Amino acid sequence: MQLSSVPGGQASAILLISCPDQPGLVATITEFIFRNHGNILHLDQHVDSEENVFFMRVEWDLARFAIPADAIGGAFKAIAEPRQMVWELHFSYNVQRMAVFVSKLGHCLYDILSRYQSGEWNVEIPLIVSNHPDMRSVAEKFDIPYHEFTITKDNKREQEDRQIELLRELNVDFVVLARYMQIISPEFVAQFPNRIINIHHSFLPAFIGAKPYHAAFARGVKIIGATSHYVTSDLDAGPILEQDTVRVDHRDSVDDLVRKGRDVEKLVLARAVWFHLQRQVLVYHNKTVIFG
Amino acid sequence: MQLSSVPGGQASAILLISCPDQPGLVATITEFIFRNHGNILHLDQHVDSEENVFFMRVEWDLARFAIPADAIGGAFKAIAEPRQMVWELHFSYNVQRMAVFVSKLGHCLYDILSRYQSGEWNVEIPLIVSNHPDMRSVAEKFDIPYHEFTITKDNKREQEDRQIELLRELNVDFVVLARYMQIISPEFVAQFPNRIINIHHSFLPAFIGAKPYHAAFARGVKIIGATSHYVTSDLDAGPILEQDTVRVDHRDSVDDLVRKGRDVEKLVLARAVWFHLQRQVLVYHNKTVIFG
Amino acid sequence: MQLSSVPGGQASAILLISCPDQPGLVATITEFIFRNHGNILHLDQHVDSEENVFFMRVEWDLARFAIPADAIGGAFKAIAEPRQMVWELHFSYNVQRMAVFVSKLGHCLYDILSRYQSGEWNVEIPLIVSNHPDMRSVAEKFDIPYHEFTITKDNKREQEDRQIELLRELNVDFVVLARYMQIISPEFVAQFPNRIINIHHSFLPAFIGAKPYHAAFARGVKIIGATSHYVTSDLDAGPILEQDTVRVDHRDSVDDLVRKGRDVEKLVLARAVWFHLQRQVLVYHNKTVIFG
Amino acid sequence: MQLSSVPGGQASAILLISCPDQPGLVATITEFIFRNHGNILHLDQHVDSEENVFFMRVEWDLARFAIPADAIGGAFKAIAEPRQMVWELHFSYNVQRMAVFVSKLGHCLYDILSRYQSGEWNVEIPLIVSNHPDMRSVAEKFDIPYHEFTITKDNKREQEDRQIELLRELNVDFVVLARYMQIISPEFVAQFPNRIINIHHSFLPAFIGAKPYHAAFARGVKIIGATSHYVTSDLDAGPILEQDTVRVDHRDSVDDLVRKGRDVEKLVLARAVWFHLQRQVLVYHNKTVIFG
Repeated sequence: MQLSSVPGGQASAILLISCPDQPGLVATITEFIFRNHGNILHLDQHVDSEENVFFMRVEWDLARFAIPADAIGGAFKAIAEPRQMVWELHFSYNVQRMAVFVSKLGHCLYDILSRYQSGEWNVEIPLIVSNHPDMRSVAEKFDIPYHEFTITKDNKREQEDRQIELLRELNVDFVVLARYMQIISPEFVAQFPNRIINIHHSFLPAFIGAKPYHAAFARGVKIIGATSHYVTSDLDAGPILEQDTVRVDHRDSVDDLVRKGRDVEKLVLARAVWFHLQRQVLVYHNKTVIFG
Repeated sequence: MQLSSVPGGQASAILLISCPDQPGLVATITEFIFRNHGNILHLDQHVDSEENVFFMRVEWDLARFAIPADAIGGAFKAIAEPRQMVWELHFSYNVQRMAVFVSKLGHCLYDILSRYQSGEWNVEIPLIVSNHPDMRSVAEKFDIPYHEFTITKDNKREQEDRQIELLRELNVDFVVLARYMQIISPEFVAQFPNRIINIHHSFLPAFIGAKPYHAAFARGVKIIGATSHYVTSDLDAGPILEQDTVRVDHRDSVDDLVRKGRDVEKLVLARAVWFHLQRQVLVYHNKTVIFG
Repeated sequence: MQLSSVPGGQASAILLISCPDQPGLVATITEFIFRNHGNILHLDQHVDSEENVFFMRVEWDLARFAIPADAIGGAFKAIAEPRQMVWELHFSYNVQRMAVFVSKLGHCLYDILSRYQSGEWNVEIPLIVSNHPDMRSVAEKFDIPYHEFTITKDNKREQEDRQIELLRELNVDFVVLARYMQIISPEFVAQFPNRIINIHHSFLPAFIGAKPYHAAFARGVKIIGATSHYVTSDLDAGPILEQDTVRVDHRDSVDDLVRKGRDVEKLVLARAVWFHLQRQVLVYHNKTVIFG
Repeated sequence: MQLSSVPGGQASAILLISCPDQPGLVATITEFIFRNHGNILHLDQHVDSEENVFFMRVEWDLARFAIPADAIGGAFKAIAEPRQMVWELHFSYNVQRMAVFVSKLGHCLYDILSRYQSGEWNVEIPLIVSNHPDMRSVAEKFDIPYHEFTITKDNKREQEDRQIELLRELNVDFVVLARYMQIISPEFVAQFPNRIINIHHSFLPAFIGAKPYHAAFARGVKIIGATSHYVTSDLDAGPILEQDTVRVDHRDSVDDLVRKGRDVEKLVLARAVWFHLQRQVLVYHNKTVIFG
């Protein structure tokens, strides 16, 4: 296996681990890396002392690592299995492939594409999917194929199956719902567990569902927010990746809330995608550990 | 009527007005003040263009005002009645009297008392009310009478009636629930409409009711908050005065949420009390207008 | 003069006024509007009680206004002159023309263009100016003419004169420096007083000048920020329009500060442009009043 | 050595380490803990890849640790010395002793004392020091000895020497300057390196020195802040522990800035003291690493 270099960085391996807490976990894992001449670049661990679960993310330099990349997983099994670890191994040089789903609103899409274009994100975007034609011209500006799937009550599952097939064909790793105004069915979600990132335009769990800005206006809140989460089969109830808020007051109409909210939405979604791209996220009990 | 001087300020009058929107409201009201030699210190108005309602707060210097303070209300009626105004008239030299209700937690109480003691707030605190003995020593430190009313399921309404009587005797203008862990009955609320300020330890409308930090922890939110609102007969559903938030992460236990939340609670409550003391608040349709 | 309709709104007039404080100002101005059958949509006033200066912004519906738009200024003079008012009169249907200056970084430019494209801002962008070729492809994506002016120490004033001429030809109302990395000379500034909006990538007055993120990193601050201000002949010292901040910590490298800072920069600049477009800004003594 | 239990927690040891980065550091340190039957409660490490410095904080349960507390340091030397580690060893059951210095303003003092009284902080406060009599009554409310040292230009060093002597006598571990309006001389600072915590009422490095709120008002900033830092012999230039900000606008007078600023000051100072109490802080190159 030939290591390709990543822009501005060295080739590194990332391990994400969770397991029942027990003495010696950090010592054992770091000793494995050290013994094989890996230099640790980042290490963050966490113990949920109520649930007694251990979480860890460790990233190390592969430059002088004694084990070839494609054999690391096999070697690590000897450590992982007796300790009942659930683990993922990633390599920094593998560029992830992201599909963007969008409906009629462009603010999140533009924000994503400008990060993509400027090289802020180390990602490939092989396609944009939409249930409407409105954003085709944006996709064309950025030379990204635009696939329109009109969704009706009757054809939804069928269209989703075609979408899944397309994502498979294009080797898509994860999906970003950039204000995609369609509920994803459980069958679709099951294909991409913890790999569909949504942005909901409220400070969850307040204002679940449709028209949250209208609901916030009616309640007279002084702060509105946005929430990015992994999609599960429960509406707006998946593991939260990131949230943020912005102040409003009595002078703000619903339109002002929508306008102010857009800026929070796009930033919250971008940070969530960043965490995912950096392999900083572990999901446990419908909550996220975001490693530093 | 003899005007007493307020610390660091001149004697001023404050009008709070709401009425159906119609042309000429600002011109008419400001002309009334101008004609009688009042100098406007602050003016803020707002039109709810959906509901077609006009809101205004105007404060003017009484130094050379032609109408004696006790006759201003009568004189203003001629303007108010034909325009169906709902209005309040306040004078800056009238120091408001505030009762503080507390249970076992002292952080909001200490914060209130330190503002009171340092003269930050122009307020009198004739009593502290509690359903527990725990905060008596704090009250004694600050030489404020402490009244304990043990509350049981059976004696609640009776005890509340005694509390109301006491508040009446002591000429209490408004009540601050500084983490008072008892639901106020509708009969009590009816005695102090829009004059009971509560602090709820969540970002409403998320996590209404008991144990919001536990609920926030279970949901895995990335931000917690606090909400100060006027108490109505609907639990945690009264008009919101102020909200604020603080970031949390997966390393924070429920205890950490409680600790971080305390600081937000005391600040949010203090800002809400400040707005109320400054006569900056108008309630309309279960929402607040907070004038600048 | 024929009134064109603005998207989603009625035709309105906006007066921005400052003058020595004196009794009766609000009454006189609002009576002028009322007498001529104008309905006030927004009114905000402020008195700087130290400087004794009065500030006001009032916007009213022109639908039934008795004075034709082109005669309002003349009519208002009778009120303004005896009171030494400095004032501006604007009409909502006049779409402003904005030039964007940019160098090599695209995040602010993309953000501006996506707001422009989506109709969030009621503005025309007749050109993009740059001292580098890098952003030409972005301008082309959005079909906006791109003018490159290579700047050297020797040709700077000459090139600026050509820029000014071009802006005049294209009837440009104001200029946005969207991370334009050239100091604008006083001669250029004098042509557009309070009409050049810059974004500086620090929380001014901290870290004036070049490389603020490096300076912030070296100082070990826990929060970084961005500042949007009108450009004056004093570097980074003009009237501040808007600021915001974001948290950083010891794990953040200079590159991380740059990355996190970009998001603050683009939002702060966008809010400043919004205030300017909405005619919400008055400058006085090198400070801004931003009306609500 | 007898281990006393800490409120709500088990006895634990905390190691803070910095040293030149080199392979195997985490493995070696954690193996030392594991081999001696310590269970890691928290571990956070950081590598400054520019300076090539390794930082680590590790906390472990002493319940079954094989080495007695008073021998741990000796045992760890064998690991530390060959790797040129700078390190500190702390035990959770050692309650730190904090002196509070104050002048005429009480908001930070009240905030500190309410946290102390409620048990939020595991700390002892053997004395309050002041250069003025004003806060004596507050100290008396909380039954804490109040020592007044009048400071003049002529007696400053002499008085400071008496203060140092008193702090030594009372076994004070660190000093909190809770709006103490006297510059501490380098001789005093040298006695408590990285153990004097100050709160400065601006967002450093903006507005160093006296009257920062007046300077912020004059500059027309839209956000003000507060900064807590360790005191060094350079005025307001020591390692920053924590900062925070609050929004202001043109309606805010200097008095409003002072009022809003007070709330930020007390919270920022409290968070800085918390980090110090929790042994979360390492100082390196005039910057802080705050471990999670």
